[in-house]
Amino acid sequence: MTATAEPRPLAIRKRDTLHRLTHDIDAWVATASPDGTPYLMPLSFLWTGQHLYLSTARNNPTARNLKANPVLQLTLGTLRDVVHLTATTDNTQPTPTEAQAFATKAGFDPRPLPNYPFIRATPTKIQAWQESNELKDRTLMQNGTWLT
Amino acid sequence: MTATAEPRPLAIRKRDTLHRLTHDIDAWVATASPDGTPYLMPLSFLWTGQHLYLSTARNNPTARNLKANPVLQLTLGTLRDVVHLTATTDNTQPTPTEAQAFATKAGFDPRPLPNYPFIRATPTKIQAWQESNELKDRTLMQNGTWLT
Repeated sequence: MTATAEPRPLAIRKRDTLHRLTHDIDAWVATASPDGTPYLMPLSFLWTGQHLYLSTARNNPTARNLKANPVLQLTLGTLRDVVHLTATTDNTQPTPTEAQAFATKAGFDPRPLPNYPFIRATPTKIQAWQESNELKDRTLMQNGTWLT
Repeated sequence: MTATAEPRPLAIRKRDTLHRLTHDIDAWVATASPDGTPYLMPLSFLWTGQHLYLSTARNNPTARNLKANPVLQLTLGTLRDVVHLTATTDNTQPTPTEAQAFATKAGFDPRPLPNYPFIRATPTKIQAWQESNELKDRTLMQNGTWLT
């Protein structure tokens, strides 16, 4: 895909985005501290169809930042094939089946670790674009609703 | 490289990191607004040996956030071969040679665009790691000084 290629229509971008959400293992996760300092870290995730589950140590900056302001931005994919999510987070823990799926997919099982709760992220906005040809119409979800 | 592989020694991590800084075209750039909301965006960059130059529209959230708090976190590479920088930013503009090098490397020339100043980022901390085997000793630069 180049900057001059034909942009993908919405349905294809959504299909490609769901494929990445289902199959990608890690994401870049940006949070911010109350004084406005950014923190960017790669974390494994599980997509359930509606939510992403992440896990990081309770005393890591990502977890501390989300406790103060439960908003994150998260990206998947490569720098020129971007899936970009904005999400709100809460402490809802995954079902046992979801937790097992996370451990299998991530190759990392936080369940035996007392200091590694799951974080549930609910996307409010999802965008997907490859290059500048796709900046227009890059929004796939707005206010938690997939566009059609 | 797997999580059980032999970790790279410092000199090799630094060499690999400088290679990525010199040859990679785009980076993930995380900033935060004064109310602590994160913003994560891919941007092209030029590494001069001491600084990175970025460019984005003056009214984009990245530029607005840096005006309020000139701190960013920036990552290169893939999710399991991470180069992670913390930097402070200022409005120093590149030399004509550097600006031309940016345009050639990025395939995007901000110079004719009145609303696209360059942002200069000076790394204060650089870390590099592949997987969990390399989390120890991942710091290559501390307080602006390369470790040796």
